[in-house]
Amino acid sequence: MSIMSARRAHLTALGLLALMPLPGLAQKPDLEMLRAVIQVSDNDPHKWNLALNNARNVQNDLGAEATELEIVVYGPGIGMLKADSPVAKRVADALGKGIKLVACENTMKAQRLTYGDMLPNIGYVSAGVVELMKKQREGWAYIRP
Amino acid sequence: MSIMSARRAHLTALGLLALMPLPGLAQKPDLEMLRAVIQVSDNDPHKWNLALNNARNVQNDLGAEATELEIVVYGPGIGMLKADSPVAKRVADALGKGIKLVACENTMKAQRLTYGDMLPNIGYVSAGVVELMKKQREGWAYIRP
Amino acid sequence: MSIMSARRAHLTALGLLALMPLPGLAQKPDLEMLRAVIQVSDNDPHKWNLALNNARNVQNDLGAEATELEIVVYGPGIGMLKADSPVAKRVADALGKGIKLVACENTMKAQRLTYGDMLPNIGYVSAGVVELMKKQREGWAYIRP
Repeated sequence: MSIMSARRAHLTALGLLALMPLPGLAQKPDLEMLRAVIQVSDNDPHKWNLALNNARNVQNDLGAEATELEIVVYGPGIGMLKADSPVAKRVADALGKGIKLVACENTMKAQRLTYGDMLPNIGYVSAGVVELMKKQREGWAYIRP
Repeated sequence: MSIMSARRAHLTALGLLALMPLPGLAQKPDLEMLRAVIQVSDNDPHKWNLALNNARNVQNDLGAEATELEIVVYGPGIGMLKADSPVAKRVADALGKGIKLVACENTMKAQRLTYGDMLPNIGYVSAGVVELMKKQREGWAYIRP
Repeated sequence: MSIMSARRAHLTALGLLALMPLPGLAQKPDLEMLRAVIQVSDNDPHKWNLALNNARNVQNDLGAEATELEIVVYGPGIGMLKADSPVAKRVADALGKGIKLVACENTMKAQRLTYGDMLPNIGYVSAGVVELMKKQREGWAYIRP
């Protein structure tokens, strides 16, 4: 049984308590939404393209509105989000389609990269690996292309 | 605390509601069953053998009846399940032992592969990466050899 | 909604049942603890260093007391924990900081390694891949550097 169907079972069972506000339950309880964090940590443009392919295929299969995707870029993979990235054009396309791309600030610090060195419109997290852990705890799937 | 033990805790706490049917609860509530999706997305027969080793080792350690395993093959890994696969014999053995192997139809389309080009008795999913997300949401572990 | 916040929601909703002991709930219910299993299965010292970097970065970002980390070493990665490992010094440092490192006994058997061939103070599991599955079922995140 999935977490989500377990949740539903509990909500059913708790029918008489239904008027209580449930902390953490969004107003539109998108129970069917599928979410994934996609890890990019290799210094390998082939992998960067695979990560972008995976994200695109999820949107094509499920519809962009039924899914939430975040590509977490860290360690040796950081070049994917640098201003001179060979996949800059595809990153911009992905951002335009609602896919989040985030760079690890720990990695940037270690490589003396500033925000100005990075592609526009991306997001930032303090530690890529911690972001992957947090998202998994929130029920997101993990994909490592 | 695991999802499963959380579930058990709730069932205990909800003891007086126990007569209500719980949607999604199987008749044999195999709470101890361990399930994993195993990702194969590299064009690398060495990785294909590792994936099959991992599945075999899980069955050896837990017993085939106490586990459910699905190897999801997509992207550059698709050759693992083509009729001329170098691991064809091992794939047949794994299928015979109850391990599921599924090929990604998106990948097949992109590579102009038909069902006739593939090994017998495998399964199919429309998008390998979506299958990995769905299974994780249902509580399956994710393994990337 | 995360598993943890779902739990909290249920605990809130079940307020009137709060005096019942909840099986599986630890005495200090460290709901905010972040846990991860980190897989090492490549015969590649570069990956071994990445795994150790990931663990260190998690501790740096969250504080060692707010996280639990276990590096699971198996298959072609087993050399990371052999007595002659090129990362022996870093493994000792990580152990000293409360990071667990465990070797797969299946792999050791296949490679005719005894406990005496391994680094001191590490842990052992019968099957690395099963350990990764068990930990994920208990809510640990999965990281494959």
